[in-house]
Amino acid sequence: MLKTAICGGSGYTGAELLRLLLLHPEVEVTAVTSERSAGKRVTDLFPHLHRYAHLIYEPLDKEKVLEKADLFFMALPHAASQEAVDYFFKKGGKVIDLSADYRLADAAVYEEWYKTPHNHKETLKKAVYGLPELHRMQIKEASLVANPGCYPTSAILGLSPAIKEGIIDAENLIVDSKSGTSGAGRKADVAVAFCEVNEGFKAYGIGVHRHTPEIEQELSGIAGKKLTINFTPHLVPMDRGIISTMYAKLVEKADTAEVLSLYRKMYGPEHFVNVLEEGIFPNAKNVRGSNYCDIGLKVNKRTNTLIIVSAIDNLVKGASGQAVQNMNLMMGFGETSGLESLALFP
Amino acid sequence: MLKTAICGGSGYTGAELLRLLLLHPEVEVTAVTSERSAGKRVTDLFPHLHRYAHLIYEPLDKEKVLEKADLFFMALPHAASQEAVDYFFKKGGKVIDLSADYRLADAAVYEEWYKTPHNHKETLKKAVYGLPELHRMQIKEASLVANPGCYPTSAILGLSPAIKEGIIDAENLIVDSKSGTSGAGRKADVAVAFCEVNEGFKAYGIGVHRHTPEIEQELSGIAGKKLTINFTPHLVPMDRGIISTMYAKLVEKADTAEVLSLYRKMYGPEHFVNVLEEGIFPNAKNVRGSNYCDIGLKVNKRTNTLIIVSAIDNLVKGASGQAVQNMNLMMGFGETSGLESLALFP
Amino acid sequence: MLKTAICGGSGYTGAELLRLLLLHPEVEVTAVTSERSAGKRVTDLFPHLHRYAHLIYEPLDKEKVLEKADLFFMALPHAASQEAVDYFFKKGGKVIDLSADYRLADAAVYEEWYKTPHNHKETLKKAVYGLPELHRMQIKEASLVANPGCYPTSAILGLSPAIKEGIIDAENLIVDSKSGTSGAGRKADVAVAFCEVNEGFKAYGIGVHRHTPEIEQELSGIAGKKLTINFTPHLVPMDRGIISTMYAKLVEKADTAEVLSLYRKMYGPEHFVNVLEEGIFPNAKNVRGSNYCDIGLKVNKRTNTLIIVSAIDNLVKGASGQAVQNMNLMMGFGETSGLESLALFP
Amino acid sequence: MLKTAICGGSGYTGAELLRLLLLHPEVEVTAVTSERSAGKRVTDLFPHLHRYAHLIYEPLDKEKVLEKADLFFMALPHAASQEAVDYFFKKGGKVIDLSADYRLADAAVYEEWYKTPHNHKETLKKAVYGLPELHRMQIKEASLVANPGCYPTSAILGLSPAIKEGIIDAENLIVDSKSGTSGAGRKADVAVAFCEVNEGFKAYGIGVHRHTPEIEQELSGIAGKKLTINFTPHLVPMDRGIISTMYAKLVEKADTAEVLSLYRKMYGPEHFVNVLEEGIFPNAKNVRGSNYCDIGLKVNKRTNTLIIVSAIDNLVKGASGQAVQNMNLMMGFGETSGLESLALFP
Repeated sequence: MLKTAICGGSGYTGAELLRLLLLHPEVEVTAVTSERSAGKRVTDLFPHLHRYAHLIYEPLDKEKVLEKADLFFMALPHAASQEAVDYFFKKGGKVIDLSADYRLADAAVYEEWYKTPHNHKETLKKAVYGLPELHRMQIKEASLVANPGCYPTSAILGLSPAIKEGIIDAENLIVDSKSGTSGAGRKADVAVAFCEVNEGFKAYGIGVHRHTPEIEQELSGIAGKKLTINFTPHLVPMDRGIISTMYAKLVEKADTAEVLSLYRKMYGPEHFVNVLEEGIFPNAKNVRGSNYCDIGLKVNKRTNTLIIVSAIDNLVKGASGQAVQNMNLMMGFGETSGLESLALFP
Repeated sequence: MLKTAICGGSGYTGAELLRLLLLHPEVEVTAVTSERSAGKRVTDLFPHLHRYAHLIYEPLDKEKVLEKADLFFMALPHAASQEAVDYFFKKGGKVIDLSADYRLADAAVYEEWYKTPHNHKETLKKAVYGLPELHRMQIKEASLVANPGCYPTSAILGLSPAIKEGIIDAENLIVDSKSGTSGAGRKADVAVAFCEVNEGFKAYGIGVHRHTPEIEQELSGIAGKKLTINFTPHLVPMDRGIISTMYAKLVEKADTAEVLSLYRKMYGPEHFVNVLEEGIFPNAKNVRGSNYCDIGLKVNKRTNTLIIVSAIDNLVKGASGQAVQNMNLMMGFGETSGLESLALFP
Repeated sequence: MLKTAICGGSGYTGAELLRLLLLHPEVEVTAVTSERSAGKRVTDLFPHLHRYAHLIYEPLDKEKVLEKADLFFMALPHAASQEAVDYFFKKGGKVIDLSADYRLADAAVYEEWYKTPHNHKETLKKAVYGLPELHRMQIKEASLVANPGCYPTSAILGLSPAIKEGIIDAENLIVDSKSGTSGAGRKADVAVAFCEVNEGFKAYGIGVHRHTPEIEQELSGIAGKKLTINFTPHLVPMDRGIISTMYAKLVEKADTAEVLSLYRKMYGPEHFVNVLEEGIFPNAKNVRGSNYCDIGLKVNKRTNTLIIVSAIDNLVKGASGQAVQNMNLMMGFGETSGLESLALFP
Repeated sequence: MLKTAICGGSGYTGAELLRLLLLHPEVEVTAVTSERSAGKRVTDLFPHLHRYAHLIYEPLDKEKVLEKADLFFMALPHAASQEAVDYFFKKGGKVIDLSADYRLADAAVYEEWYKTPHNHKETLKKAVYGLPELHRMQIKEASLVANPGCYPTSAILGLSPAIKEGIIDAENLIVDSKSGTSGAGRKADVAVAFCEVNEGFKAYGIGVHRHTPEIEQELSGIAGKKLTINFTPHLVPMDRGIISTMYAKLVEKADTAEVLSLYRKMYGPEHFVNVLEEGIFPNAKNVRGSNYCDIGLKVNKRTNTLIIVSAIDNLVKGASGQAVQNMNLMMGFGETSGLESLALFP
């Protein structure tokens, strides 16, 4: 049994890791840390995790935690993650960082968008961006995986085949995303109070959301040239789920069936990506609680525009599930191990 | 007291008209029709309308209804509305049609998108598109007003100033709209069942939604040339509200404050349109139950794109409230009469 | 125009007072206080109140506020309200206290349940419990009205006729209440975060909720003897609304129609209480945003038990609407003035 | 691999069986029937079940289905289930009936409450009521198990220990239950439309709900005498989950800790029942998607009343999960096989 620790386990992604790992046949969780909740039981914060009745939050004493585990899920806030990741990595641990600290290969871009210095640039060079559908081979070899952000996962999976095949004008990309409220994390904040979110809908962070450079980095990598995108996230009154609606001009005329077949070519072998039939579009509800990404698309002939819609569960394929998938690849487990559950519907 | 009839009063827009008109000091509702619910009390369908305990649904016998009222709100389904509108109009009634039948000035466009003939093309020529912020003067003189669709109201109000001022490339417009579920109407349909909609989010009607030509007609009118748009509606798990997020390339560099001031120039005199301060974006919750439209916008300098977000309540400014506003204009009442309520928050 | 001040106006009940008073033809709001939000505009906290763009939160400087208004809505937290109420009352102001500080006539009961001393017992004697359907005459004469709690309003209105008529065993009362989340107030607290409340349902405060003695006080007054009740509140994933389901043994056999007629006898003259027809039960949605209370009931012949269900909007009839109703009575305005709106449905 | 068929698989319980059985290591689904959806793919109705892409709904041709499977989950409507159950049972199949047709041992009671004759009274005698926590031994030996209703599961688990230990006056039981909307099934009905349910809360079927005699049968069996209950179900605006709040007079004084220890005595060995700590009460959200039942309770000393709150997921422990648990017992599989998932939170 692989011993794993979850550093920063008092948020929704930490809880989701615990939920998922319970069903994993080759893993046990041997430590879970939280500064604020140190000394509390996991079940004090998350009664639904009653099968972890024995597990107590401890402060992140790196030396102690190092002794307890061989693989480290880092679910700390941005910036706070840098040093701990560096420590476990240098000590020889396998590390999967769910923060943004090791996602942007260019430290200057990180420093510009996150307004904080990157203090471990050498380690950053070792990090692999953990989107298995793009970087499976490198992930298998990696000791440090930067787990993608939720919005980027939905956007990159949605746009990659079109960019790779060169069928769209990648200069004009629009990513209009809508996320359930768990994406904002578990916190005491009027802005996420039920009565503020419920029966409401709004855009936020227009043009300045930190997931922008992450999407641009990966899409630029595919395009082979630097791209910029318009990224607008919105808050949906639901717990989980991201729908990204993406717009791109086609460079030549094409019909929906042709584009779908390009998508199937890329994603046919992928267990966790479903390319839907023509005329069918994804619903966040159909992936809730699962590690799947559903993709539908349509060519609007009147405007010669390709419209792609992707759906993921932000806490699973957009965070903890993808982290487990990355662990499976890094450890040589079956890639779908622990991730076989279908969506909880309704 | 103006006598009004509501034809097709068993849906959400009919019920909303009744709710709004109760607070109107110069109007009474003298008839409400429904084929399916004929003989039932309004309160059998809508217990919240208990102040209308006396009102019984009757079949739409045009001659009888004509005798009972002087102004006719037509909330019938598309196509079904054509003939009844024509009848009341020709008999000298004031008519406000909430269906799509008289919105598209070009009957051929109507026939193409609605897949049904238009049998009253002469009457169609007399109809005024009832968006007061664009056509107030004509509405005041009109006897037949075509009340705008919900999505078009949000999109046209959001884009008009930018097009009018010529600051955007109107060829590349993207309208990504999100609507509460009441937009789908009151019906027995698994697709709108609570367990199907709740905790879900999806796009629908991509590129083919019938509100597309309506938006194009009005924006083309402002631009002085024919435009096409990409319009994608989405279904939000909430009762009411539309957020439209719109994207357009700026023809020249501009900053957010400059664009906001153009918007304020156009909407400053408008009671029902609020242009929000820089950095503030609308929330559907802040207009729920009210006739207001909130608009926020931002110039994304990295991409030279103008992103506009508008919010309305689809049943009020997007339907019944706008119909009351149109009635006020047609009858010479105060334009805000009966429409003074602020949003119900939370 | 009556000048009114709202002390403690940064919560949901304060915002709701502002919303309601805007439609009141004889009232203006001349001051609104908040310690934490002093200096901010009302619209900074509540954008939907844009018609109050001029209004700025100020600290509760009692002398200053006294000069600005003649009637004082006190929406301060429990205990904090005591002294300010006493001050405005003694200075000759009309005071409507939405806190619990002046609801319990017996200061000892207050001190036991609220764990804080009552420092103004003489003033407490002057307070009238502001449930118009029970105490209309005293409210008309009062200068200090203690506005009832939300749960108590629903429970007392639901049980009063049955107790008054002596048809139930008042020793065995069970009040099982369910409230929307706005009842918890506007606050930064993980417990009311969207993701914690949505798709959940739970009981809380079983047997110890502070509204218990308030319900008991009023029902005991009607019964003419001291009663105790079992009161269990629950949290519903919705913004507004309370449903109370109440159970009482009938002292003699009766049928539903007979009991309904007793309820109609008491509530027939009441504008804001609707006794529903046999077989119809209230839905919180049908009173949302309105000052109405709907009541339905049924005799279960198998168990000889009377089951009563009442519905109110906790922020309107359960707080701010009832406060306006009390103001109307105290000032000699029409009792329904400013409160004519029907529920926002859907 | 055990071959199983699902008869009546186009509703939410059928879909939930498919979801759960996918994770079961010893079972495969070889047939799924639906009259209305015959010929459609499972994924046409339920896209989230994409791992069943091969499965097509077929009409319920009993002979054909008999050949395909050895165990039959019957998810047909009440009355429609009688004959098919009888057929598979007599042909030697293992049958788990999720309808109510074989739950009530006394056919006369069934006929009174369900207003339909019972045509298979001999087979009815062979049916075992499938609540493992009460009847595990009989279930293991049974070939026909009547899977309990959702409300009964929550009520019987909540009240059994108190009745068994004789600490409550079982004559005065009140069961006030609240259910998510999936309990109403998947159907085209305005009453379950999103806009009718969302932001609402209501009681229904007061005193006449068909789950009443089922609860009474099981509790009477424990008490050793005939009991009647007051049962009031309510509709909650959430997808899944039942909270039952139960009230009973204590026959002698007791404190909460004592009663909790009696509950722990009975449920200590039970994997799927969690008796919560003193002061902790269940939340429907903490069992969502799981087969667990959480129980909390409190003695109200002021009224000498025991208040018990239980929580289940109506589609899992209240239907399909319990059916799988019963299958495990009948087939000698591990009782928790396929049911290890914790709740999906948030």
